[in-house]
Amino acid sequence: MDKLTVLKVGGAITLNKLLLDKFLNNITKIKGKKILVHGGGRELDLFLNKNNHPIKMLNGRRITDKKTLDYALMIYAGKVNKEIVAKLQSLKINSLGLCGADANSVLCKLRTKKELDYGYVGDIVSINSVFFKLILENHIMPVCSSITYDKDGLLLNTNADTIASEISCNMSRMYKTELWYCFEEKGVYQDDNKTKIINKLDMATFKSLKSKGIISKGMIPKVSNCFNGLKNGVSKILIGSLDAIIENETYTEIIP
Amino acid sequence: MDKLTVLKVGGAITLNKLLLDKFLNNITKIKGKKILVHGGGRELDLFLNKNNHPIKMLNGRRITDKKTLDYALMIYAGKVNKEIVAKLQSLKINSLGLCGADANSVLCKLRTKKELDYGYVGDIVSINSVFFKLILENHIMPVCSSITYDKDGLLLNTNADTIASEISCNMSRMYKTELWYCFEEKGVYQDDNKTKIINKLDMATFKSLKSKGIISKGMIPKVSNCFNGLKNGVSKILIGSLDAIIENETYTEIIP
Repeated sequence: MDKLTVLKVGGAITLNKLLLDKFLNNITKIKGKKILVHGGGRELDLFLNKNNHPIKMLNGRRITDKKTLDYALMIYAGKVNKEIVAKLQSLKINSLGLCGADANSVLCKLRTKKELDYGYVGDIVSINSVFFKLILENHIMPVCSSITYDKDGLLLNTNADTIASEISCNMSRMYKTELWYCFEEKGVYQDDNKTKIINKLDMATFKSLKSKGIISKGMIPKVSNCFNGLKNGVSKILIGSLDAIIENETYTEIIP
Repeated sequence: MDKLTVLKVGGAITLNKLLLDKFLNNITKIKGKKILVHGGGRELDLFLNKNNHPIKMLNGRRITDKKTLDYALMIYAGKVNKEIVAKLQSLKINSLGLCGADANSVLCKLRTKKELDYGYVGDIVSINSVFFKLILENHIMPVCSSITYDKDGLLLNTNADTIASEISCNMSRMYKTELWYCFEEKGVYQDDNKTKIINKLDMATFKSLKSKGIISKGMIPKVSNCFNGLKNGVSKILIGSLDAIIENETYTEIIP
């Protein structure tokens, strides 16, 4: 099987032009087929603040009202997505920006409102792996924003970590797939003071660090997504800075 | 050769959910392969007004400063494009939203600043007809927003009428291509009081009506694009309401 690397990039990188340019330059050094997944939460927060619209979070996930969805659509699928694609083109990586509605690439359903109402948030129903394969085999790199949709044409916000994990699981039937969660830190810390990175994180350690509150907020669903990926065919899952991963310095590998 | 219909939809339709839904429903009635091109100028104007940013026009074309470009990116390539794609998916038309940077579909260069400075505006260098064909042959309808880019990765604003015309010219080597400019009117009027539609508009009539000021503003580059299309292989060019064209009522056909 051919190799495929699914990269997810965090909002602190996409917000900062210097960091983003460095990240995208690093992508040119990765051999084989690649898919990039991004959100743009930090930029959305700035935009919401500027427009005096409240930012609502719950357990590390955003509550998306209609206005927040509209802004997310504009920033994730419009500004951030197209700026990444244009930059990649200038680096000679032929890329294609997508939201989940494009070519039915990521179909979702509106999250059921139980005790918690996350608003216009989608849970993934299916990944169009046939389309992703078509694009990859034509030497084009998909760049997926974290906007999805449901079968009735309702656009939805979906956690980018989860999209990256689900795409990885689905594509692992066709490619030897690695999933790299890239952000501004070197990996998952094993202490509150952020002095030491965990090199190999297994489920038992995760549970222990979660109960101590050392792994918290957005890191909890991120690491949960990793374990989900490992159970579903993804061959390797890394969390850290793309610099470090490429240069084989410190990063966190998730192991069963 | 297979038939291809390139549709361009105007901003007064994309701004109005009822008109847009009707327009997209009508698309399901058109047989054969289709490409849709849209801008979103009216929605951009509303957004600029809301954000106290001046709207600048010259000869029916927008002057795009950096902030206007950012907003155009968000509205054309983000909000309008993805809302159209999601709606088409719900109508069982598999579609793919694009800006020019996506898969290098529409490559431009920054317009030279001579006596007039249009700002971040791109003139078309090339259309990636191989990519469009790949998508069409896989039964997916491209939906092109009027955001393009240059080889250095600079995103640019480009007239949607011109994009539709250039795509039509390029695709006419592979498909029997028709170009339909769809908007809220039934066609091009032959008098200032908008009482009578011109059924067949040739170059001589165009020049005469332009000199009298009856064809003016944005209609001038639109019709100019039509004559350019006719000279470059497009088999039929229509201007009017999609309702009327489909039902074969009054519309304007451009003839040499």
